[in-house]
Amino acid sequence: MTLDDLPTPCLVLDRPVLLRNIAAMAETAARHGVPLRPHLKTAKSIEVARLALAGQPGGITVSTLAEAEYFLGCGLTDILYAVAITPQKLDLAAALNGAGADIMVVTDDADMAGMIAAHPVALRTLIEIDTGEGRSGVDPEDRRLLEIAAMLGARLAGVMTHAGHSYAASGVEAIRAIAEAERAGVVRAAERLRQAGHPAPVVSLGSSPTLRHAASLAGVSEVRAGVYMFGDLFQAQLGTHGIDDIAVTVLASVIGSDRVGGRLVLDAGALALSKDRSTAGAPKDYGYGLVLDLQGRRSLGDAVIGRAYQEHGVVTPDPAWKLPALAVGTRLRIAPNHCCLTAAAHDRYHVTDGGEEVVAIWTRLNGW
Amino acid sequence: MTLDDLPTPCLVLDRPVLLRNIAAMAETAARHGVPLRPHLKTAKSIEVARLALAGQPGGITVSTLAEAEYFLGCGLTDILYAVAITPQKLDLAAALNGAGADIMVVTDDADMAGMIAAHPVALRTLIEIDTGEGRSGVDPEDRRLLEIAAMLGARLAGVMTHAGHSYAASGVEAIRAIAEAERAGVVRAAERLRQAGHPAPVVSLGSSPTLRHAASLAGVSEVRAGVYMFGDLFQAQLGTHGIDDIAVTVLASVIGSDRVGGRLVLDAGALALSKDRSTAGAPKDYGYGLVLDLQGRRSLGDAVIGRAYQEHGVVTPDPAWKLPALAVGTRLRIAPNHCCLTAAAHDRYHVTDGGEEVVAIWTRLNGW
Repeated sequence: MTLDDLPTPCLVLDRPVLLRNIAAMAETAARHGVPLRPHLKTAKSIEVARLALAGQPGGITVSTLAEAEYFLGCGLTDILYAVAITPQKLDLAAALNGAGADIMVVTDDADMAGMIAAHPVALRTLIEIDTGEGRSGVDPEDRRLLEIAAMLGARLAGVMTHAGHSYAASGVEAIRAIAEAERAGVVRAAERLRQAGHPAPVVSLGSSPTLRHAASLAGVSEVRAGVYMFGDLFQAQLGTHGIDDIAVTVLASVIGSDRVGGRLVLDAGALALSKDRSTAGAPKDYGYGLVLDLQGRRSLGDAVIGRAYQEHGVVTPDPAWKLPALAVGTRLRIAPNHCCLTAAAHDRYHVTDGGEEVVAIWTRLNGW
Repeated sequence: MTLDDLPTPCLVLDRPVLLRNIAAMAETAARHGVPLRPHLKTAKSIEVARLALAGQPGGITVSTLAEAEYFLGCGLTDILYAVAITPQKLDLAAALNGAGADIMVVTDDADMAGMIAAHPVALRTLIEIDTGEGRSGVDPEDRRLLEIAAMLGARLAGVMTHAGHSYAASGVEAIRAIAEAERAGVVRAAERLRQAGHPAPVVSLGSSPTLRHAASLAGVSEVRAGVYMFGDLFQAQLGTHGIDDIAVTVLASVIGSDRVGGRLVLDAGALALSKDRSTAGAPKDYGYGLVLDLQGRRSLGDAVIGRAYQEHGVVTPDPAWKLPALAVGTRLRIAPNHCCLTAAAHDRYHVTDGGEEVVAIWTRLNGW
């Protein structure tokens, strides 16, 4: 089977690029002497997880309990559920522990910490620290840090943070500064806990951009990242990787081609690509994705999906690019703005070894 | 089971509102004396389809062949696949006809028309007409209209158009003008075909806004619409329906609540809501959705999801609204910007009769 045999739209995963991205992040973690706990919210696939875990201790990060359940079913037990837990979700997390998992949960709330401590099933818990993103977590100096720790008691395993605001940074120096604030903040929180008598062995941080550019990870016990596996047009502009390091693309077909008027319409629209417009604020705006040829080459210049309807993607040609005479049915590929969102629109990866042959199909989990 | 028992995030469908929306569109179609061919790309559910078909001839519209296959499996045979077909998809459409469907396909391309005509399985075909949207289709006066018709020969069943640019209109008068251009354009195309000796019995048009406000549908044989069933914050501002007519919401839980700092974080982020920002250009920008209470009331004023991460939604409070002390685990509901995109993030509807009891679970189709 080749890419020409697949129904469109569908998701293509270039395995050599994936492996290269995984090796680069593993090398980064090794250089700092810190183990990597891959975040699987992007890939949501056991095959990708196994590749990302090569040479690592085996712990993973997930963003939903559905992911935790799926990966536990595949034999992975050391799981950090990195989104703050609710009372209703405690029982499910506990049930997964009863089924063999060792789930770490996260909170930034004293009442929730009390409920975790009172639950009959022990769940190791990390306190979420805000190191500048302003999304969730307590400030390292916040008095609530010690209140939450006191509520958790023996359930307290440490601290975690995510410097997601690195995505809004302009330039490598800015990312490096955020990486240091992420490290210093979460290490400071751990020190405060230890001064108060809590062991807090786990000091967990990470985002793909900050790990890529961090000067030091001193005091950190583990790092987390996920986007680096696949890459995307937004990360490429952050300097997390090159544009040739994007491993996932959407295979699409031409459904309308007005060779006189220069109009080109594909069957990859908002559902197949997502409506993520993260490159709108980046140096180069790629619309809803960059149009590549079937081989994944940039032979159409900077042609992008300029308008995305539910199932229609309308191509905006590169101004310097002469529209080739593409017949209806011609296959193209679209590099995504944001791989997490685009991948989530699909239920499987069509894996290639860089060519047009489909060498494997890997299913992926969606939903909650 | 009540809404309090459901894992979050998940999708809630208010059946009385759905039925009211369906009745309103059926009344509109009846007033014009034109049958409705409901577009099921929004709902993708046989239960919703059956309600939408009450009093109608039974024909449906779909946006993917996966939907066609699903609805055929549920016994619906008269199916318009309203996205332009490709050579690769012809065989699948033909196979569905072999399995009992009567699928109508769409093209705006002479080469594709030739392939449809040459296919051993007969597929009734509509020529797509561009009545102002500029997305796909041929102009009613374009010489290619007759070329495509000549290629199709006996396969030609008529013409179809979709005035999707009505979504960008400001005010009811503007929508009414677009509705008339949609009608006049597609009827003119049918007349040209008939003058050239083609019967062209099918003259199909529609979008929820243009149907709602059309003054005349003279010459039209059927109308199509889908968004009207569920409604959303964008359509409410177009005047397609009221804000109380939004039938689908996302049930979410509070996962972070800084009662001092006024920060409120929910477990409905970009994956549960979509990254659709269609209200960004509307009179009122609802961010990634309007925050309602568990009962679906606007007791939080104009609080919206201001920032959407993969699984986190950060609430931007109404400036005139005092943040209530919401504990972690508190349930809220989010009205969507664009119901088609938000619904597509979920695999089922949790149906209520307006209260908190879940009276049914209806699965929905996704993917291709």
